[in-house]
Amino acid sequence: MITEYSETENPWESVQRQEVYDNNWITVVHEDVITPAGTAGIYGSVHFKHYAIGIVPLDEAGNTWLVGQYRYPLKKYSWEIPEGGGKLGASILDAAKRELQEEVGLLAEQWTEIAVCYTSNAVCDEKAIIFVAQGLSETENAPDETEQLQIKKLPLSEAIAMAMNGEIQDAISIIGLLKVKVLLEQGKICRI
Amino acid sequence: MITEYSETENPWESVQRQEVYDNNWITVVHEDVITPAGTAGIYGSVHFKHYAIGIVPLDEAGNTWLVGQYRYPLKKYSWEIPEGGGKLGASILDAAKRELQEEVGLLAEQWTEIAVCYTSNAVCDEKAIIFVAQGLSETENAPDETEQLQIKKLPLSEAIAMAMNGEIQDAISIIGLLKVKVLLEQGKICRI
Repeated sequence: MITEYSETENPWESVQRQEVYDNNWITVVHEDVITPAGTAGIYGSVHFKHYAIGIVPLDEAGNTWLVGQYRYPLKKYSWEIPEGGGKLGASILDAAKRELQEEVGLLAEQWTEIAVCYTSNAVCDEKAIIFVAQGLSETENAPDETEQLQIKKLPLSEAIAMAMNGEIQDAISIIGLLKVKVLLEQGKICRI
Repeated sequence: MITEYSETENPWESVQRQEVYDNNWITVVHEDVITPAGTAGIYGSVHFKHYAIGIVPLDEAGNTWLVGQYRYPLKKYSWEIPEGGGKLGASILDAAKRELQEEVGLLAEQWTEIAVCYTSNAVCDEKAIIFVAQGLSETENAPDETEQLQIKKLPLSEAIAMAMNGEIQDAISIIGLLKVKVLLEQGKICRI
């Protein structure tokens, strides 16, 4: 038996909604709900106040840049594509340009949006936007005072290999690097 | 000036730690911290009690299966690879087998782990493990009562195209599908 469900209608019903935590980055909401099956349940969800932004910088020689930092929620060090946050409602591209300059010290003439994704949709509404940045020139960087960043310039092919072999485990970075690989092969983005 | 930072030492210091929310799936922790720069700050983080599991089923004809469901935190419908959760400490492979059978009604003889990633590492510690499942046979499905799932069988190439063109926006699904594409091209997984 095939049941066709609506793809537009929300099958969950919220009976009671309570904000249980709030800071500058997230709001956590606890709800008593009626599930799609009609049973009583609860749903705890995390609402993000910023977009996540990822950037794959790509120079004319085929190099990219990775950023290393300690990710406190994981208690682990992580090598990633340059990433940052942009406030909901503000220009995503401006935030991406700012992050690439502040973290890596790069300006880019050409920006191409290559991916929009939701990072953890069972619990969180975090939305990530990923760009390729080309036509690069170097400038001063000025990382956020709360960050201790390491920067590594390397061939894009090596970064893609790290995404394939598990050395890079950050979801946004894996998506950015593999999408760039496929788009280059398809001729949808070009080396400039 | 290049500063080399330790990749093993945690540069954040927790001054005070408080659990502000807890349910069967997540614990939210608020901490007063000293940042890597030595300044006072706060950190709100979300700790997950389950792994996220993603599965790319692949039959000998080159077909895969997608699952459609309404994702309540996003207030959006989402087409994805079969996904589920496995309790930390329990067998991930057993949980993957259970999810594929319950959600899609498929048994698989051959399981290959293709990715480990962290979905949203600035705030969450959610870890995802992604498999390719091959040697498939059909059985009964028995979806969780809280889920209203639609199942779609389609060529893997079409699912990959959906991951590239933005029709699939779930991070675990994009990673799973693009990794399978590259691994097939590299001959590291084979059609069986």
